Amino acid sequence: METKASGTAGKPIKCRAAVCRRAGEPLEMEEIQVEPPKAWEVRIKIVCTSICHTDVTFWKMDSGPFALFPRILGHEAVGVVESVGEEVEEVKAGDTVLPVFWSNCEKCRHCESSRGNNCSVFANRPLGPGMPRDGTTRFSAAEDGEAIHHFLGVSSFCEYTVVDVVHVVKISSPIPVDRACLLSCGVSTGVGGAWKVADIERGSSVVIFGLGVVGLAVAEGARLRGASKIVGVDLNPDKFEIGKKFGVTDFVNPEACGERPVSEVIKEITDGGADYSFECVGSASVMADAFNSSREGGGKTVILGVESRGAPLSLGSYEILRGRTVVGSYFGGLKPKSDVPLLAQKYLDQELNLDDFITQEVSFQDINTAFDLLLQGKSLRCIIWMDR
Amino acid sequence: METKASGTAGKPIKCRAAVCRRAGEPLEMEEIQVEPPKAWEVRIKIVCTSICHTDVTFWKMDSGPFALFPRILGHEAVGVVESVGEEVEEVKAGDTVLPVFWSNCEKCRHCESSRGNNCSVFANRPLGPGMPRDGTTRFSAAEDGEAIHHFLGVSSFCEYTVVDVVHVVKISSPIPVDRACLLSCGVSTGVGGAWKVADIERGSSVVIFGLGVVGLAVAEGARLRGASKIVGVDLNPDKFEIGKKFGVTDFVNPEACGERPVSEVIKEITDGGADYSFECVGSASVMADAFNSSREGGGKTVILGVESRGAPLSLGSYEILRGRTVVGSYFGGLKPKSDVPLLAQKYLDQELNLDDFITQEVSFQDINTAFDLLLQGKSLRCIIWMDR
Repeated sequence: METKASGTAGKPIKCRAAVCRRAGEPLEMEEIQVEPPKAWEVRIKIVCTSICHTDVTFWKMDSGPFALFPRILGHEAVGVVESVGEEVEEVKAGDTVLPVFWSNCEKCRHCESSRGNNCSVFANRPLGPGMPRDGTTRFSAAEDGEAIHHFLGVSSFCEYTVVDVVHVVKISSPIPVDRACLLSCGVSTGVGGAWKVADIERGSSVVIFGLGVVGLAVAEGARLRGASKIVGVDLNPDKFEIGKKFGVTDFVNPEACGERPVSEVIKEITDGGADYSFECVGSASVMADAFNSSREGGGKTVILGVESRGAPLSLGSYEILRGRTVVGSYFGGLKPKSDVPLLAQKYLDQELNLDDFITQEVSFQDINTAFDLLLQGKSLRCIIWMDR
Repeated sequence: METKASGTAGKPIKCRAAVCRRAGEPLEMEEIQVEPPKAWEVRIKIVCTSICHTDVTFWKMDSGPFALFPRILGHEAVGVVESVGEEVEEVKAGDTVLPVFWSNCEKCRHCESSRGNNCSVFANRPLGPGMPRDGTTRFSAAEDGEAIHHFLGVSSFCEYTVVDVVHVVKISSPIPVDRACLLSCGVSTGVGGAWKVADIERGSSVVIFGLGVVGLAVAEGARLRGASKIVGVDLNPDKFEIGKKFGVTDFVNPEACGERPVSEVIKEITDGGADYSFECVGSASVMADAFNSSREGGGKTVILGVESRGAPLSLGSYEILRGRTVVGSYFGGLKPKSDVPLLAQKYLDQELNLDDFITQEVSFQDINTAFDLLLQGKSLRCIIWMDR
């Protein structure tokens, strides 16, 4: 694979980017300038990228401190290191890497601990407009030099991006790049949620609210752990057929439950409540439904969805006393640098189904088509190839 | 110890009871009649009892479906089996037993599972007015036969009570009865919360909201697990000195924090948030404080307090996503029949400090004095001796 390391290292690169200039409007294909990486930074030539619902959330966001324009969205991708800044020893030009939104410095108290995956130094920084260490941008418009904001520490909707080394996972195994791309956010979040956060046991009952990529990846993780019942909950009835590919055994459409609360229907199907209940939607009311669907005496609710309005989660205090647990996590509780390569290996071992998450492929110039497919519910993941 | 088994078995017994006739008014010492035990039931001669805050909660309760009068309160006690009904093989006349409010049938799915302690057959029944199987009462006023309600499956403020065998724990070890009495609710809830629900690890930081018996027992459990920091939070500054006996290392009085939220103070003391945060008050707002005092990336909040008004627990949805866990339990996640004898043994092994929980002793006729001491914050546990 071409790396351009020798020719471009240390210099700005001009290339194409799909820039988000206004909330909810189509991305604009523009020529941008990408600065060389500073210390602890890595410049990556993106090979392919895909769209996650969090991209859509920020694309639509028209107010508040995180509504930043112009911006380069995108945080699921695979690329090849073009050059590295000072202090970077972990990767070198030519390495295949996943840029990931979830920081992993590997040196702090949390990164070194076996509990949790919240890097205590960098975890809160990717929401800012620039690079995590100095807050400045590496992107500008080629035409007039206007600064362009970063997104979640990644910004993959461009041919070249610059990310901090704490956001880089090296991929050494021969996994196809489009399959690896899936592991940089949604699929890892779901499988990690099932394996690391919930730690699903053989024979368990599982309910999953929201059968997007994260929810389907939870199902896939639950299937591989030997769950005996995997109930999918979604407003789109087509999701049952899709879900079966990932182990979903039962399906509930809340709109088809009539007057009955969905949690009552789930309790009936799962003989009193699910052992593990997952929220993969990002809605406080669905979080409450998930909690109320978990069983007394050991039922665990795992929150993976990001509440789009930041609404609080409300739990019945008597209900939680009856031996229920609620736990949340970003990135499925995984530590990117050490855990993502393990998932890649599971794919190579023909255990983890990644193939069925890819529903379409488009060339970079058609990125807005990929947005439309996702918005219309016609896509799980559409791979966007930068060089095709 | 005298058992009266031969003389009274199968017949009603007339004896004294401290009857709660009106919400918040002193208990009235009355003569009552106690029926013989039916199938699956055990009649127990109470040796000593003590008062837990849940007794106070129900004593004060003046409306709603659980405000039942006349009633015999009390659910921390030790006694000797006087006689047993049909089908009871687990204990016999003369056995020393703890009647406990938390059911444990040992046969249902939950009782047989290693997860949780919510007996799936009986867990919801002790709030009713009568015996768990048929809902009828075994108590009546000796004077006019008026029915008197049971309480939490125990009703220990009387010389004889009848409880279902699922509420009986046999005590075979030579633990003194007054120490054993403590294990039938509060101390077990706290120690179990620390050991079984939280599973505290050596070197952890712990914060405990509410230094009543449950909170102090959490501290004792945390101390025995080798926690490096045990922060007590209470509005009563005297609780710091008391807490030190159980391992409390730091103390925060929320009223002395000025404008600063107590969770900010805790985060400062615990270097970013406690590994384990316990709510032992029973207040939704304190539950939120406890949650907000737990650390990102693995912090666990354990809810042990019963919200007195049933108010819901509100959690920041972004806060829980950062790797936090909330878990609730009754009776510290312990299965009474198998776990309480282990705590008794820990006392006999001179590991578990039970002695310092006993602050006063009174005779049965002075039970209202014991109520006053608890209400005035002057008592942890006052042992009420039935025969003194």
